[in-house]
Amino acid sequence: MATSQTVLGRGASGEAEGGQPEASDRARPGEWARPVIEHVTPRVDGGLRPAKTSVGELLRVEADVFADGHDELWCEVRHRPDRSRAWTRHPMRLGLNDRWSCVVPIEAEGPHRFLVRALVDVFGTWVHDLLARSDAGLDVRVDLEVGAVLVTRALAQAKSTERVVLEALRDHLASPCDPDVAIGGELGRWTNAPSLRQALSSARLRALMVDLGTARSEAVSETVHVVADRPKARFSTWYEMFPRSASPEPGRHGTFDDVIGRLDYVARMGFDILYLPPIHPIGRTARKGRNGAVHSEPGDPGSPWAIGGPEGGHCAIHPELGTFDDFGRLVRAAADRGIDVALDLAFQASPDHPWVTEHPEWFAHRPDGSIKCAENPPKRYEDIFPLDFESTEWRALWSELLGVVLFWIDHGVTVFRVDNPHTKPFAFWEWLLGEVRRTHPHVIFLSEAFTRPRIMEELAKIGFTQSYTYFTWRTTKWELETYMHELTGTDVAAYFRPNFWPTTPDILTSEMQEGGRGAFLSRFVLAATLSASYGIYGPAFELQEHVARELGSEEFQASEKYEVRVWDLEDPRSLSGFIGQVNRIRHEHAALQFNDSLCFHAVDNEQIIAYSKAHRTPAGSDVIVVVVNLDHHNAQSGWISLDLDALDVAPGTPYVVHDLLTDARYSWDGPHNFVKLDPAVVPAHIFSVESTPGPADRGGPP
Amino acid sequence: MATSQTVLGRGASGEAEGGQPEASDRARPGEWARPVIEHVTPRVDGGLRPAKTSVGELLRVEADVFADGHDELWCEVRHRPDRSRAWTRHPMRLGLNDRWSCVVPIEAEGPHRFLVRALVDVFGTWVHDLLARSDAGLDVRVDLEVGAVLVTRALAQAKSTERVVLEALRDHLASPCDPDVAIGGELGRWTNAPSLRQALSSARLRALMVDLGTARSEAVSETVHVVADRPKARFSTWYEMFPRSASPEPGRHGTFDDVIGRLDYVARMGFDILYLPPIHPIGRTARKGRNGAVHSEPGDPGSPWAIGGPEGGHCAIHPELGTFDDFGRLVRAAADRGIDVALDLAFQASPDHPWVTEHPEWFAHRPDGSIKCAENPPKRYEDIFPLDFESTEWRALWSELLGVVLFWIDHGVTVFRVDNPHTKPFAFWEWLLGEVRRTHPHVIFLSEAFTRPRIMEELAKIGFTQSYTYFTWRTTKWELETYMHELTGTDVAAYFRPNFWPTTPDILTSEMQEGGRGAFLSRFVLAATLSASYGIYGPAFELQEHVARELGSEEFQASEKYEVRVWDLEDPRSLSGFIGQVNRIRHEHAALQFNDSLCFHAVDNEQIIAYSKAHRTPAGSDVIVVVVNLDHHNAQSGWISLDLDALDVAPGTPYVVHDLLTDARYSWDGPHNFVKLDPAVVPAHIFSVESTPGPADRGGPP
Repeated sequence: MATSQTVLGRGASGEAEGGQPEASDRARPGEWARPVIEHVTPRVDGGLRPAKTSVGELLRVEADVFADGHDELWCEVRHRPDRSRAWTRHPMRLGLNDRWSCVVPIEAEGPHRFLVRALVDVFGTWVHDLLARSDAGLDVRVDLEVGAVLVTRALAQAKSTERVVLEALRDHLASPCDPDVAIGGELGRWTNAPSLRQALSSARLRALMVDLGTARSEAVSETVHVVADRPKARFSTWYEMFPRSASPEPGRHGTFDDVIGRLDYVARMGFDILYLPPIHPIGRTARKGRNGAVHSEPGDPGSPWAIGGPEGGHCAIHPELGTFDDFGRLVRAAADRGIDVALDLAFQASPDHPWVTEHPEWFAHRPDGSIKCAENPPKRYEDIFPLDFESTEWRALWSELLGVVLFWIDHGVTVFRVDNPHTKPFAFWEWLLGEVRRTHPHVIFLSEAFTRPRIMEELAKIGFTQSYTYFTWRTTKWELETYMHELTGTDVAAYFRPNFWPTTPDILTSEMQEGGRGAFLSRFVLAATLSASYGIYGPAFELQEHVARELGSEEFQASEKYEVRVWDLEDPRSLSGFIGQVNRIRHEHAALQFNDSLCFHAVDNEQIIAYSKAHRTPAGSDVIVVVVNLDHHNAQSGWISLDLDALDVAPGTPYVVHDLLTDARYSWDGPHNFVKLDPAVVPAHIFSVESTPGPADRGGPP
Repeated sequence: MATSQTVLGRGASGEAEGGQPEASDRARPGEWARPVIEHVTPRVDGGLRPAKTSVGELLRVEADVFADGHDELWCEVRHRPDRSRAWTRHPMRLGLNDRWSCVVPIEAEGPHRFLVRALVDVFGTWVHDLLARSDAGLDVRVDLEVGAVLVTRALAQAKSTERVVLEALRDHLASPCDPDVAIGGELGRWTNAPSLRQALSSARLRALMVDLGTARSEAVSETVHVVADRPKARFSTWYEMFPRSASPEPGRHGTFDDVIGRLDYVARMGFDILYLPPIHPIGRTARKGRNGAVHSEPGDPGSPWAIGGPEGGHCAIHPELGTFDDFGRLVRAAADRGIDVALDLAFQASPDHPWVTEHPEWFAHRPDGSIKCAENPPKRYEDIFPLDFESTEWRALWSELLGVVLFWIDHGVTVFRVDNPHTKPFAFWEWLLGEVRRTHPHVIFLSEAFTRPRIMEELAKIGFTQSYTYFTWRTTKWELETYMHELTGTDVAAYFRPNFWPTTPDILTSEMQEGGRGAFLSRFVLAATLSASYGIYGPAFELQEHVARELGSEEFQASEKYEVRVWDLEDPRSLSGFIGQVNRIRHEHAALQFNDSLCFHAVDNEQIIAYSKAHRTPAGSDVIVVVVNLDHHNAQSGWISLDLDALDVAPGTPYVVHDLLTDARYSWDGPHNFVKLDPAVVPAHIFSVESTPGPADRGGPP
């Protein structure tokens, strides 16, 4: 918790390292300050760990700032990218309950820092008291004299352009006058005010007087760290596919060239990250058979996560997929289409991995000399050995693993999906991610930890860019609303970027098994509009693959994890067209590219969920309302009660909602509106709210 | 936010100053630890400022603790009073969502510190995996061998009494065996377990194995500071009275001797702090007249808060009240009855205060040489000059004010009610309270700040023992429930101790003006049972004084602030009997002496509020249910839906509620019960819940 430095005997400047904010040369009564600064946001672990932002974002900074007594305060944010020495200043505005805020435009990639600075605004306080006393009919002659002294003192610091303004002000104050006296000349022009009262109340004059040293008793918050990732860290659309199933010819193992052949298809659907499960040689020992059988049959390809064989380990390519040259061509062809290729980082080894013989010290051996396979009793993964991150040789192991990441970065990979990071120490990840980011700040890491909430949060805190979530299992309205509040409405939002997946190769929920096309459409719209980042496991998803291995299982029947599949992309039931349409809407509407403004709206039917997102910039607002039928089998209807304030719709003003899926427009008036959604057609509306007033009328960011 | 020290290169012991917890001599793989410790509570400002507790309390410590992977953890709190060098250990228990907790008995007054320590429990993990593998029918021969190695290693550290137990255990593990094999001998007796499975799962064996060095990868939280006040800081019952109105003879100014004459009356009602408004000489210049008139008439005594005259200032006594000898007798006579005398600390001066002439530098002068009177434009307090805490001579002023506090402590005062602390700098209070507490830890300071929430909270954070609240204006069920959640269910509860007042000499709400006897009874019960500390302004309260100075004002007509009043304590309408009865209930029921267990229960009538408090100790539980009619004019009835869990009532078990006000007993069964309350009789029930099971059956603190 960042608290300002108000304790007697402490200095008032909170910045220990890096460049100092401009040192204050104001006389202060002592080594203590009257303002208190608390609950600065965004902030993670007291500001030591970075909160997440991205290039192009307007970072909203808030703090509780207050002082004793009734004096007015001046608050500002000082901000700089770590590698710059120059601080920029952003005046904050007072909201409710002593909460101050401002927005800071983030332009540079990499680490940033900011702090909040507060002073007692002597001039502002004087203006407030003068006007209050004058309005109460009290004698203000001495007050005017006090003001003239303040202005005269400020004049000593003023530049020539400002001198004219302040001299005019001082002349007004030097003789008894009514605050409502009309003014003109330079003072009137500069403050854009017709009367002395309005000139005194102008924000411009108040800021100038602070700049000229009339504020005092400076408090400075602790420094807060923020990291700005590239925009794709915040807004990304993932497509997962098994390259070995990319062959259009049944019976032939897919290759990188086949994946290149799929790129236009993937790009047409609007995806910008293509995630491939491990592409390394696969072990033979204890290889799993089809549907995860303990014994494999000849010809079974094994699980790609059983990494390592005679052909090599984590820095080798499975020979049937192609060569490093082929891989390079794939990365470049994807880049030409705006697509990043994401690799899987699974830090484990098949019994045939070179590490097992070359570095036995990196594995935990049991008294009988055996290495324990990966296990979560009673479940066992006989084809996989876990690494021992705590062995006496941990330094060499950690170093080797960092080398793996840097190796693939050298081969053009800028996105990694990390397999089960929660089974490796947090300290390892914090170190590895830090080392990579130091030289490659644009690299994105997605944490695939389906485990307990505190552990998933910790992984995000220590540096993972994005995180898998429980979305896959949150199905009712109450579950979705509660979970979204946790992700977007609590401290977690400062560091945890959710990535929503309706299915994965490991997870085919009973809802998806039983819900038919309605479930695929509904869950897809939820993922793509609730979260700025989401992904699908294709082509299984768009082809509505929904048969489970057995009753009660979330495993796919004939899972690609254990066999090569062939997919008919031309299947007329494919959802690829719908997917492409929703992704185009995501790209055209900034509201869907952020999570922070998410707002749920009441509907009088538990089977219908409604929510909005708004993106507000000086140029205008983009507001989207999404309504989804959660019943995959029946049409549902109901009345929505919209929170018009969240939609930037002024009370009593009619507005138009434009369904971007059907191109229909509806004229609505007031909060209560009727909706009906049929899963047999399309179980969702994605409305753009039109004819909303600009932010100038709505108090958006300045 | 206290985070554990898991970052590579940092040491794992978090304690920089004071005694070290016993240094761990376990071999660790490196300078990093696997467990993470977060969100330690109670904790204020990252542990730097003390959370509040009191002597005799069971301090509940909680933390999120987790590690990578599936290993079992060992967590404990290490605690010591600051002045002791020896840490005591308290094993923590795992609750929901990786939240661990324990209770620490607080015995010594003054500052304490604690930290949370976590290790990977290698033995516990081995037991868990062994039993899981065994239950899954897997071959556990190697697992038993691993366990035998662990036990053998522990034996090297064991004392002779433990050796026998561990040798028996090792012998069991050394040969292939079934976990369900029956055991006897020393191992069975020591673990109190009939089978090997139960012996392995016993908490005693697990703790022994940790003690013998089998746990590893130690993480330690930051040190958290706590201050233990004397019990009256937590549980206190205040009576405010103007000593000048204590005379039983109309026309005679009251004296300390008159107050001594009132002590039995005050003690009979059950109060244990007697708070006197300022007892110092009162200024003549600009003295306020009756009802706060700007001009006084001859004989008007003036406001006691206009401190200072020719007779002296803050270290003098108003001559008409008596002498220092008289005051000393009052303090001793009160102490004989268990009552502390509380003085008012109003750091301001009448224009006649000696400071005004002896130390003009302690006041802010305006350009015309005048001193600005206290003011909150357009309100003015012409009889009071504020002190300038920021003058160049602030050190001397602060020192003088500390001297005032120490002066009265020397005269036996141990409780201070501080007038308007929010108009003096926070840094001043933090320094002054710290200085006083260093030598006088038993002194209690009540903050009289009726201002914005963040400011009131900050004053509590920097050291005020108790705080006035918004209770006086929270009247509806929704307002009371929301406000109580803020005070008892958020971080604020760690440092802010509310003190509830139905009225004060400054505040007679319209509810009290209009609500009649019903309002006095209802608001009294709410104050006395919602908050462990409360107070009344008497005798005005028990005599139901309720006439306002004018319509729309919260000032009393003929306020004692500006004139001497005479009170008829024998008035048959006096509520003193009822007050004494409720205070006896508070003293007899520990549940009402704490706020942390407060729980509201649903009632199907907005005019009836119901809540419970429970106090659980190893000796048993005390559970109180309070039901209050908020309608002061009409009888109201409704159905309560009790949360039986909060009452320690097992589902399906009948229970008896005993109304401590009427001595009636009701047999209830299940959560839904009917109540009816008539303000013309008594608008409240205070039920003791009887025949509840002991904590042994309910999972209370160990």
